[in-house]
Amino acid sequence: MPTSEVSGGLAEKVIARCRKLAIFTEDPGRITRTFLSAPMRECHREIASWVEPLGAEVRVDAAGNFRAYYAAAEANAPTLVIGSHLDTVPDAGAFDGVMGVVLGVALLESLRGERLPFAIEVVGFSEEEGVRFNTPFIGSRGLIGTLDDEILARRDARGVSVREAIENFGLKPAEVPGAQLKGDILGYIEFHIEQGPVLEELGLPLGVVDALAGQSKMEFMFTGRANHAGTTPMHSRRDAVACAAEWITAVEREAQRVPGLVATVGAVDVKPGATNVIAGEARATLDLRHRAENVRATVVETIVQLAEQIAARRGLSVRHETKASQPAVAMDSRLAGAIEEAIRRTGSEPHRMVSGAGHDAMILAEKYPAAMMFVRCPNGISHSPEETVQVEDVAKAIEAGTWLLEGLASRTISSARESK
Amino acid sequence: MPTSEVSGGLAEKVIARCRKLAIFTEDPGRITRTFLSAPMRECHREIASWVEPLGAEVRVDAAGNFRAYYAAAEANAPTLVIGSHLDTVPDAGAFDGVMGVVLGVALLESLRGERLPFAIEVVGFSEEEGVRFNTPFIGSRGLIGTLDDEILARRDARGVSVREAIENFGLKPAEVPGAQLKGDILGYIEFHIEQGPVLEELGLPLGVVDALAGQSKMEFMFTGRANHAGTTPMHSRRDAVACAAEWITAVEREAQRVPGLVATVGAVDVKPGATNVIAGEARATLDLRHRAENVRATVVETIVQLAEQIAARRGLSVRHETKASQPAVAMDSRLAGAIEEAIRRTGSEPHRMVSGAGHDAMILAEKYPAAMMFVRCPNGISHSPEETVQVEDVAKAIEAGTWLLEGLASRTISSARESK
Repeated sequence: MPTSEVSGGLAEKVIARCRKLAIFTEDPGRITRTFLSAPMRECHREIASWVEPLGAEVRVDAAGNFRAYYAAAEANAPTLVIGSHLDTVPDAGAFDGVMGVVLGVALLESLRGERLPFAIEVVGFSEEEGVRFNTPFIGSRGLIGTLDDEILARRDARGVSVREAIENFGLKPAEVPGAQLKGDILGYIEFHIEQGPVLEELGLPLGVVDALAGQSKMEFMFTGRANHAGTTPMHSRRDAVACAAEWITAVEREAQRVPGLVATVGAVDVKPGATNVIAGEARATLDLRHRAENVRATVVETIVQLAEQIAARRGLSVRHETKASQPAVAMDSRLAGAIEEAIRRTGSEPHRMVSGAGHDAMILAEKYPAAMMFVRCPNGISHSPEETVQVEDVAKAIEAGTWLLEGLASRTISSARESK
Repeated sequence: MPTSEVSGGLAEKVIARCRKLAIFTEDPGRITRTFLSAPMRECHREIASWVEPLGAEVRVDAAGNFRAYYAAAEANAPTLVIGSHLDTVPDAGAFDGVMGVVLGVALLESLRGERLPFAIEVVGFSEEEGVRFNTPFIGSRGLIGTLDDEILARRDARGVSVREAIENFGLKPAEVPGAQLKGDILGYIEFHIEQGPVLEELGLPLGVVDALAGQSKMEFMFTGRANHAGTTPMHSRRDAVACAAEWITAVEREAQRVPGLVATVGAVDVKPGATNVIAGEARATLDLRHRAENVRATVVETIVQLAEQIAARRGLSVRHETKASQPAVAMDSRLAGAIEEAIRRTGSEPHRMVSGAGHDAMILAEKYPAAMMFVRCPNGISHSPEETVQVEDVAKAIEAGTWLLEGLASRTISSARESK
């Protein structure tokens, strides 16, 4: 039976443990821990020292994922997977990813040795951020069997392949298929800091993610005519910067108009890029996300048309290129409902939300029911040493997590009864 | 007596000579000739071979300027200086600067040995573009006595000072004061390609420059908050790119509103500059020019206010810095009038215009009557290998030049009579 007193003490422990894991870094003074780097081994060892006394069986699979298996009350029971990632971006905070793993451990701890009608496997994924190999989700792909030879052959900046990195860590690439989840999987639950300001703005500690937004990554290249800034009258210009600027403001207006849409021009490059020369070329990136595939497709089309219209009116040309298009992923509605119910039982309003960022849950959802719980993120700051969480919010997450386990346990029992 | 037949033949010669001088380059295959570089010596030698047979006295002054002095009919007569620069930007065209010197030579040639009531000194300035020492007008400063020790001490990218460059060329820095113009100076005339599209748009071969625009060079730094492009809703953003873009479009509107104003944002730098990160910083340059000092000052103020208003409304801050402020320079009205009259006598409408670019005439105007004649510039292209001139336009310039000499000669005679 969850109590906020227990979860309060555990919450402080969770935060202390996240900060403890932060000392295992490639980069003294900053938190940087990429795929199977040396500090990842210390990280695994530390977490193992927490879960082994709880009666979990620990291993590191061949995809480099930390796995702690806490058996069910009975054999042949299904497994609930609770996970997140242990790698970080360069100069990261202490909570993104890591906290989801440490919360999983805290939930095992909250059971005080009790066994449930399902096993719990806590997973610390080896790779989610895509830093070392410019390829995200290496760890979670291992669990669903899509960590293939093509990915294993990719190389980092020093020319080391994923395969070699696995070998160098003392693991066996040939055993990668053994990383796959087996048997009856009840579902995958991921706790994660929100990495955005929505819950904070709403004054809520926790949210239920019911979809991960689809993403379009594009590049627009406006070509005008470089010319002398002093001698070319305004009406004779084909100014690529002015054209791109008009389009950027139009993109922003469009994004503000469509509920739930985010659109960002994050990079702008100008040529020749001199104070006294009208730019002949401007390159601008576009990052556009929405939970609904049809909305994303329509808005992309509108934004391309806007670029073409603005360029044409100004006598410029524009080309665009789609660098990536990643479909939206729905979370499992029953699992999301169970999380929602668990949050409600803590006395908080469970805010249903879309995740604008990608997460391991997106990969697991390809094969298993998956859902996420977001924890309020002060100032919306992540991927930064300033990233924090509030102890009360972590306590709420633990409390909701224990209610979730209870809820899933009673459902598992009743569905087992029904199927008998 | 000017005839278009004579000037037609001379025009072809002028163009051929400009192309001949283009072979003297630091950079084979491209035209690049900076202050007192080795090819400048060959350039001087070549021009000397044209003017010496015409009866002009040739020297290279200690500021590196080529000087050809064509004496007057009588001693103690005043001097008309006709000049432009012999240095180029990197990967230049064959006409910017050079053509003004070659046209001066052509005017001497058109005299067929006749001596006028004034001497003519054709000057090929050593430096106008500011490429080697990031300091323009080194040559013309020599003529008015403002090439001081501070400038002589400036160093190029290899650490060579102006003074050392003068020595290395075999000249004597101590003799720089001897480069100054002496005696009665009738005025300074500069022929130059327009470097803009105005005459072409008007369908006119020649223009009279009656002012050089004042210039403001500024930098604006917008500071917002870098954030995740996927998880930060549109209303929670402090997007430095979107803010800068709104300001850039406002700058353009303001420039279009004010007659004769040009305003350019030529360089934009964005940080962090990643597709999936809302930019926290955007730096944008501003180049603003107008012939009227009060207009320039007012518009600068308006543009600063626009930046502050736009930033404030969006929750960003903005700083600005004035990198350079160069006052407008009026050309001598009598000399400009004489050029206007000379153009009219060729049968062309003389378009009065402002030069948006700086020229040696700006420096000479500090001490002497100065004016410029612009020659139509196809497609407004300069500072590029694609820079050209049309032979008919050069012929018109020569014809106008000879009318100008005739006009100045009759005025000089009548003013000499009056003063007797």
